Amino acid sequence: MVEELIRTIETRTGGKGLFEITSEVQRVVTESDIVEGLCTIMIQHTSASLTIQENADPSARHDLERWLDRHVSEDDPEFTHTHEGPDDMPSHIKAALTSTTLSVPIQRRKLALGAWQGIYLWEHRTRGSKRRCIVHVGR
Amino acid sequence: MVEELIRTIETRTGGKGLFEITSEVQRVVTESDIVEGLCTIMIQHTSASLTIQENADPSARHDLERWLDRHVSEDDPEFTHTHEGPDDMPSHIKAALTSTTLSVPIQRRKLALGAWQGIYLWEHRTRGSKRRCIVHVGR
Amino acid sequence: MVEELIRTIETRTGGKGLFEITSEVQRVVTESDIVEGLCTIMIQHTSASLTIQENADPSARHDLERWLDRHVSEDDPEFTHTHEGPDDMPSHIKAALTSTTLSVPIQRRKLALGAWQGIYLWEHRTRGSKRRCIVHVGR
Repeated sequence: MVEELIRTIETRTGGKGLFEITSEVQRVVTESDIVEGLCTIMIQHTSASLTIQENADPSARHDLERWLDRHVSEDDPEFTHTHEGPDDMPSHIKAALTSTTLSVPIQRRKLALGAWQGIYLWEHRTRGSKRRCIVHVGR
Repeated sequence: MVEELIRTIETRTGGKGLFEITSEVQRVVTESDIVEGLCTIMIQHTSASLTIQENADPSARHDLERWLDRHVSEDDPEFTHTHEGPDDMPSHIKAALTSTTLSVPIQRRKLALGAWQGIYLWEHRTRGSKRRCIVHVGR
Repeated sequence: MVEELIRTIETRTGGKGLFEITSEVQRVVTESDIVEGLCTIMIQHTSASLTIQENADPSARHDLERWLDRHVSEDDPEFTHTHEGPDDMPSHIKAALTSTTLSVPIQRRKLALGAWQGIYLWEHRTRGSKRRCIVHVGR
């Protein structure tokens, strides 16, 4: 029996926004064949992040993203880290205010998420990128 | 010897605020009989969240809650996700800015919290609700 | 073979700022001799916190710290928790908005961080202090 498993998930983001990765993470849990345990996800970037949010109504995710976008302005005159573009420094701040790692218990071979919860990769850069998450499943 | 344990904690919140759940989480750790390990807590909701905060002076928690309440306004004219009430969208934002999952090491059968740390469930909805957290204890 | 290991890391901060602790955490991973697993870090304080941020350009960390400093003001007239100094209440808020616990997968005996990621202890108090983190390494 497998005691633990580590896999990499790659997500191509087309630009700013919340991209659901619940089924990709669940696939790693299923592959591990672990019945009860813990699944940890870490994003290997500092200008994108993770969040667990409502997966029912897209308007909630839209408003969430817009709120953070309005409150971490690209036009902040105090920024000195600007050579990677005006959207880079706000991306680091947004990542620090949300999550880089998440840990979700596993019950009956499933992520023990609530009825309306989904795991999202949150892209903060305007142009997006190919993003990597490491998924660890253990007991 | 038990290698791991998963339990559900239910908390009835009467409205907005920080509700300490440290002793309920410790009870799961004690039940597991694990001496050294890791305890992970995940809240199964997206309009309430988790935080580890000072458990000594209640004024710190009061100011913390008020600060977030003032900075994530219910009267934001840009919100489109409004059909679940004016407090719903701010609740999702507050949850994204705080924590949905926390992992606390276990030493000598106890949560290895600092002297003034407590684990809190943070209710963001005005009317409150019955909230569920999943607690995983493993080695 | 070691199945798990818990160690305490102490960091003396001279004042506000981001202090990299990646090598101290890696040292615990190396000591455990675990090839694949999970490393969890928890800070035992509520006026300092943790974050995974860019370890390349110091200007990104400078701007990050300054942004949070400007947005969580010490001069907030609504604060009631003021007897520990004007920087105490903002410190609790900053801690709640960032992270108290982080979990990083281990691959080939190394923290599976991205190319430009470092683990930082974020001191929020003006005078700094001696800070303790608990590091748990398991499989």
